[in-house]
Amino acid sequence: MRLVRFMHGGRTGYGVHDGEKVYATCWEPFDRIEEEPQPLEESDVTMLAPSVPSKIVAVGLNYSDHAAEFGLEIPEEPVLFLKASSTLLDPGGAVVYPAQSLRVDYEAELAVVMGAEARSLSEDEAPGAVLGYTCGLDMTARDLQLKDGQWTRAKNFDTFCPLGPWVETDLDPGDLAIELRLNGEVRQSSGTSRMIFGVPALVSFISGVMTLYPGDVILTGTPPGVGEVRRGDEVSMTIEGIGTLSVTIS
Amino acid sequence: MRLVRFMHGGRTGYGVHDGEKVYATCWEPFDRIEEEPQPLEESDVTMLAPSVPSKIVAVGLNYSDHAAEFGLEIPEEPVLFLKASSTLLDPGGAVVYPAQSLRVDYEAELAVVMGAEARSLSEDEAPGAVLGYTCGLDMTARDLQLKDGQWTRAKNFDTFCPLGPWVETDLDPGDLAIELRLNGEVRQSSGTSRMIFGVPALVSFISGVMTLYPGDVILTGTPPGVGEVRRGDEVSMTIEGIGTLSVTIS
Repeated sequence: MRLVRFMHGGRTGYGVHDGEKVYATCWEPFDRIEEEPQPLEESDVTMLAPSVPSKIVAVGLNYSDHAAEFGLEIPEEPVLFLKASSTLLDPGGAVVYPAQSLRVDYEAELAVVMGAEARSLSEDEAPGAVLGYTCGLDMTARDLQLKDGQWTRAKNFDTFCPLGPWVETDLDPGDLAIELRLNGEVRQSSGTSRMIFGVPALVSFISGVMTLYPGDVILTGTPPGVGEVRRGDEVSMTIEGIGTLSVTIS
Repeated sequence: MRLVRFMHGGRTGYGVHDGEKVYATCWEPFDRIEEEPQPLEESDVTMLAPSVPSKIVAVGLNYSDHAAEFGLEIPEEPVLFLKASSTLLDPGGAVVYPAQSLRVDYEAELAVVMGAEARSLSEDEAPGAVLGYTCGLDMTARDLQLKDGQWTRAKNFDTFCPLGPWVETDLDPGDLAIELRLNGEVRQSSGTSRMIFGVPALVSFISGVMTLYPGDVILTGTPPGVGEVRRGDEVSMTIEGIGTLSVTIS
C-alpha cells in the first residue's frame, strides 16, 4: 500500500495512492476523518514529504563499496548522525545550495519510516515496528563535512533531506535496486543487498540508543557513485518497488 | 519572568512562576486558556522540561579552557552536533546509564530557548529571536564518543538531555556564573563570559545553516571540569539568574 501525505485545495491530507488516484483518509490538523474516501485526481494533488518525523537518524558508510570509494574502513558498528526535521524537502522541491559551501553532493538512500514506538528491539522484533519505505536524499556539503570533522553542519542545511514520494508498506527491503540520475545520467546504481547493516540490524541498533517514535525516519546509507551537484541540476532517485523522488538544485 | 511547563493534577500546563507560586496560563493540548490564572502551590506542581523543541543544537568546545582540558585546538567556527528530542529529561528525573557505555560524563551548559522563527540572523538580530535561558546537561558517553568519531550516538541516549527548571526571559547571557555539583561537591565552576562564541554569535551561525523554530534549544557548550558519573550519583547545576537543575543517575 502506498501511504501519501499531500496538499489538496490548500489543505494537508493523508491517504492512499492506488497507482491512479489518491484517496484521502484524513486531513490535518484535527480536521475531519473521511469515512468514505473519495478519489482525488493525481493532478489536483501535490505530494509532500510523507512523514513529519521527530528525528531523522542517518547511517554513514553502510555500503562496503561506498566506504572503499572514500578509502575508509568498514565500521564494526553503524556510524550514526542526525538530520533535523528542518532539513525536510517535499518531492519536486528545490534544494537550496548554501552560500557557505563550494561542494554539495547527492547521496541516494533507502529511507525507513517507523510505525510504532521502538525501544531496544531485537532484529527479529524490528520489522514489526516499521511502517514502510521511501526514498531519501542525504544532501551533504562535502567541503564542510571534511572541514568540521563532525558531520552535523554539512548534513543539516534547510532542504538537505528530500523525502518521498510516498511510503510503500508492502516491501521487503533486503534486495531492492537503488539508482540515482543526475540530469538524466545514471550516477549511482546498486542494491540494498550490499548494505553492511541491513534494516533489521539498524532498527535494532538505533532503538537500543534512542527511542524511535512513529513517523521517525532512518536513512540507511548511500551506495557508491556520490558526486557533486550544481545550481540548475535535476536529481532523481528511484528505488525498486517504491518509485521516484525528483528535486532540482537552486 | 520565569516561564514554566509543569504537570498538575494529571494535566500538562504552561505558566509563570513568581518565585512562590505557579500561575497556569494555558493547558495542553488544546485545553482551555486561563483568562484569570489562579495561583497553584509549588508543592502541587511537577516541573517538566520547559520546552518541547523540534531540535536541540549543541556546540562543542565553546570554552577555551575546556578545549585545553582535552588538548584540542580552539575551533575557528562553532562545532555543531544535534541531540534528538528523545534525549529530554525533566528536572528531578533520572539519567539512565546505558549498558553500552563504561564512561558517562556530565557537562553543564547554558541552554538558549528560541522564541521566534530564526533564519540567517545577524548577531544584532539574534537576541530578538531568543525567548530566554535555562539549564541543560549534555550527558555524554565519553568512551563511545571517542570510539565513534562522530558524537551522535554518545550524546543521544534517552534521558541524556536534562533541561530546566524553567525559562528565564529577563537575562543577559553574557556574564553568568555556571556551576555543577556532583554529590554536593563543586566540579565545574566558570562563567559564560569565557565562551569562545557568545549567544548572539551562536544564534547567528546556527540560523545561517538551519531554520530555528520557537521552542528550539541551543546548548552552548560546557566549561572545564567535566567528569564521570556513576549510578546513584546526584548531579546538580546552577546558573546565576536562572536556578538549579538536579537529576540522579540510575
